[in-house]
Amino acid sequence: MKLYYLPGACQIGIHALLAEIGRPFKIEQAARPDTPEFEAYTQINPKGKVPALIRDDGSLLTEFPVIALYLARINPERELIPTDVEGEIRVLEMTEYLVSTVHMQGYTRARRPGKFTPNESDHEAVKAQGLKIFQAGLDRAEQQIGGKEWLFDKMSIADFALFYLEHWCVLNGIGTLGPRCQAHHDRLWSKVEIRHAVESELIA
Amino acid sequence: MKLYYLPGACQIGIHALLAEIGRPFKIEQAARPDTPEFEAYTQINPKGKVPALIRDDGSLLTEFPVIALYLARINPERELIPTDVEGEIRVLEMTEYLVSTVHMQGYTRARRPGKFTPNESDHEAVKAQGLKIFQAGLDRAEQQIGGKEWLFDKMSIADFALFYLEHWCVLNGIGTLGPRCQAHHDRLWSKVEIRHAVESELIA
Repeated sequence: MKLYYLPGACQIGIHALLAEIGRPFKIEQAARPDTPEFEAYTQINPKGKVPALIRDDGSLLTEFPVIALYLARINPERELIPTDVEGEIRVLEMTEYLVSTVHMQGYTRARRPGKFTPNESDHEAVKAQGLKIFQAGLDRAEQQIGGKEWLFDKMSIADFALFYLEHWCVLNGIGTLGPRCQAHHDRLWSKVEIRHAVESELIA
Repeated sequence: MKLYYLPGACQIGIHALLAEIGRPFKIEQAARPDTPEFEAYTQINPKGKVPALIRDDGSLLTEFPVIALYLARINPERELIPTDVEGEIRVLEMTEYLVSTVHMQGYTRARRPGKFTPNESDHEAVKAQGLKIFQAGLDRAEQQIGGKEWLFDKMSIADFALFYLEHWCVLNGIGTLGPRCQAHHDRLWSKVEIRHAVESELIA
């Protein structure tokens, strides 16, 4: 399998998950829009985004929550998605919220307001709106972790969606982690395979 | 079960799915932010959004793709989500894309640019950006339907995500449906249970 990435982008959650699962995989750098390499990347992934996973049969899989679910499905012994309906949908509900709202509606506004408004004088207002959504997501995660180590009773794919948001918070100073989210982040970050994987994006 | 809705909002996809499944359910109107009723609605759904499903045990379930998957799971005889991994993830990948990108990044910009930029003079630019994303989604769906009746070999939850986008296109004149998407929309809209359900939102 091969994971397409942009250094430090949201695929670090998938990258960390692949490292945690521990089967061999490759990584290759994707391209940002408005670069000469982007056209070639859209030949590989017509959506032009990351994460994108090329599977062993050469087929492409996209969308963070679905790539994460796929990796859980093909590695059932890791129990990264519950097998009962109630457990499954709660993990997917949290993953969906973290990716499609907290990241795409929150963090992106706070970090890249130009994607939302063309006018630079409005960037501060858009950033503030995004930070509110992002922080609400971190606060919700903080509450849900409670006295546990993970968002649910055991480690699940939702923890890897939360991980990349926490990591962005730590790296870029956007939002504030509560003590449980900080410990949750550090619990994954202290795994040498995960740290090496995420850091390798910056070196490659 | 009870579905919270805002007339004509994205929950029409879930509403249509409930109607297609054909088990009894209720609907109740949610509230938009900046209305006096919103505070009370956030007591029911802290995210303050639709769709929100109150299940028979009184518990809340949110996030369109996850509510749709849940309804498929508890009605397995309807075969609305494939039971093999490959089929399952392809349906979920399409559902995710339609909801989190085509709707939330595309249609919302085109329909409600004020959510993206505070400055009214920038609304046309934001609308144009949104229309491009929305139309790309409709075009991708058009291509995927191909010579079939549905997005995949048989009807799935992804068809109900596409349905609400198609219905918005038809109702509000945003974007253009190709002939296959138009036929796909009409195939669902011609079911009297679905039409009555969606229309009941405007009457209630």
